[in-house]
Amino acid sequence: MNKIKIGIVGYGNLGKGAEKAVKACEDMELVGIFTRRDPKTLKLDSQGVKAYLIEDAFTKKDEIDVMILCGGSATDLPVQGPQLAEYFNTIDSFDTHAKIPEYFESIDKAAKASNHTSIISVGWDPGLFSINRVYAQSIMPTAQSYTFWGKGVSQGHSDAIRRIQGVKDAKQYTIPITAAMDEVRNGTNPQLTARQKHLRECFVVAYENADLEKIAQQIKEMPNYFADYDTTVHFVCEEEFSRDHSKMPHGGFVIASEKNEEIVSTIEYSLKLDSNPLFTSKVLVAYARAAYKLSCENNFGAKTVLDVAPSYISPLSSQTLRATAL
Amino acid sequence: MNKIKIGIVGYGNLGKGAEKAVKACEDMELVGIFTRRDPKTLKLDSQGVKAYLIEDAFTKKDEIDVMILCGGSATDLPVQGPQLAEYFNTIDSFDTHAKIPEYFESIDKAAKASNHTSIISVGWDPGLFSINRVYAQSIMPTAQSYTFWGKGVSQGHSDAIRRIQGVKDAKQYTIPITAAMDEVRNGTNPQLTARQKHLRECFVVAYENADLEKIAQQIKEMPNYFADYDTTVHFVCEEEFSRDHSKMPHGGFVIASEKNEEIVSTIEYSLKLDSNPLFTSKVLVAYARAAYKLSCENNFGAKTVLDVAPSYISPLSSQTLRATAL
Repeated sequence: MNKIKIGIVGYGNLGKGAEKAVKACEDMELVGIFTRRDPKTLKLDSQGVKAYLIEDAFTKKDEIDVMILCGGSATDLPVQGPQLAEYFNTIDSFDTHAKIPEYFESIDKAAKASNHTSIISVGWDPGLFSINRVYAQSIMPTAQSYTFWGKGVSQGHSDAIRRIQGVKDAKQYTIPITAAMDEVRNGTNPQLTARQKHLRECFVVAYENADLEKIAQQIKEMPNYFADYDTTVHFVCEEEFSRDHSKMPHGGFVIASEKNEEIVSTIEYSLKLDSNPLFTSKVLVAYARAAYKLSCENNFGAKTVLDVAPSYISPLSSQTLRATAL
Repeated sequence: MNKIKIGIVGYGNLGKGAEKAVKACEDMELVGIFTRRDPKTLKLDSQGVKAYLIEDAFTKKDEIDVMILCGGSATDLPVQGPQLAEYFNTIDSFDTHAKIPEYFESIDKAAKASNHTSIISVGWDPGLFSINRVYAQSIMPTAQSYTFWGKGVSQGHSDAIRRIQGVKDAKQYTIPITAAMDEVRNGTNPQLTARQKHLRECFVVAYENADLEKIAQQIKEMPNYFADYDTTVHFVCEEEFSRDHSKMPHGGFVIASEKNEEIVSTIEYSLKLDSNPLFTSKVLVAYARAAYKLSCENNFGAKTVLDVAPSYISPLSSQTLRATAL
């Protein structure tokens, strides 16, 4: 069997997760890791795999079937994505929702011009949650689909707290509110405010002599991030912080419910993840398989998870899937 | 806008549900109902729509974009499916799992020979549950996916009870066992027996003077249907039966969980349906849209839900979906 040859760009949490996830797939083989750092400094988890400078990626264009881009959406992917789509089939987790259409166009142009397939915005949201929003709303046309996140760590909110004077470290947990989820499950398409859907719970390590009351107030009143939510702030010591709050759990729910003449149908999809980046990288790797299959069918250009049939992410043939999974 | 022109074959619970579901879709229009009964005896729910004899369906081949087959899997679909796939794009809910490969081949042959697209085995299981089994297992290669059904009415089990002497009417509820679901959610891929996964609860109306003890024993010892499960039997009067057990609720869960070095990822999909046939017909109608789109792309032959990308079942364009649902 010819294995699908994978390259990984970036070796942070997501890249390391992708390395593990590729290992778990018998139909894949990791060819190289591409990094901005000095390749010699990288300690790879895979035997026989080399690290390269990202600038040299194009020299490997004939040795790699799919490149998995593990950079961030803010600055890495808008540059790397279109560049690498000229040389490779690519997968990325671009997650700036508002900029997806623009990003899609730039990747689509590069991929189509060079006969490559690029699946963008892969992960769980955007990604698996998007898929479930579309399935639910297409099947139940009058249902609204509701997304609840958590319980999990929001990096953006944690970062926002860390920017406050007197804060040494912080983690923010987004917590979905059960009463709101139950209301959605009843098929009434309720109007829910931000405050009704999620709680925000913050664990903060403060510098000595910092004004705790002021920090708490600054957090709770921070516009966009916290002002529209019921927020609790706990000050903890460094020891407790590193013991209880060093992980990156996340997850959430997509719920949609339709009521016709008192007959209710409810569709619910949920994820519970001890590690957000580790799970996201599993999704990236599964879609690398889809990008490879699509490119083999000359189905080029940018795609999203919404354009990819479920069978494409499976290592099993359509025939086997019909006999075993249908 | 050109609406997708739909025909419905069969006017039982599923056909009536499909009629309602088509009405709820602004991009569709119902052209006709095709029946084995005398068309004049059908009281349709849709104004301006006519009923026809199923034998005359082929005369409407130029007026219908997709035919939704609402017959049963035991005897209707194996005959009707291949016949109608010669004249129409079709959707059906063929659900005899073991015979799907054979059925697929017969439909594929008819559809390809006549340039039609047929999506078979559409519904929730097979259907949405199958999709979720494939997504979960492809993303988490070492996870097993577990399907739990219920709480809901199993027609097959209810029928089996009704065949027992002394039984006037009966309903059987399949109930998933929470402890087993929780075990699956922990990522240990547990070995679960039939008895550990589901309970069976039966509500029976007996004829006067029937031997209740004997009936209960016959139910509990019935091979395949009940012997491998913990089964409870309640005898109720006709009044209570028709008041509390006249509906057809169903649903269930697809759960898969993977543990890597103590890090657990859990994917869970669930349906809670007050009416099994009404929901199934909503799924059929959404996939009718997909069959139409695929046929417009000359993508002919038999397909299953595993071969259809999520965007195909949506009335929205890929561009709109990227901007709003991703």
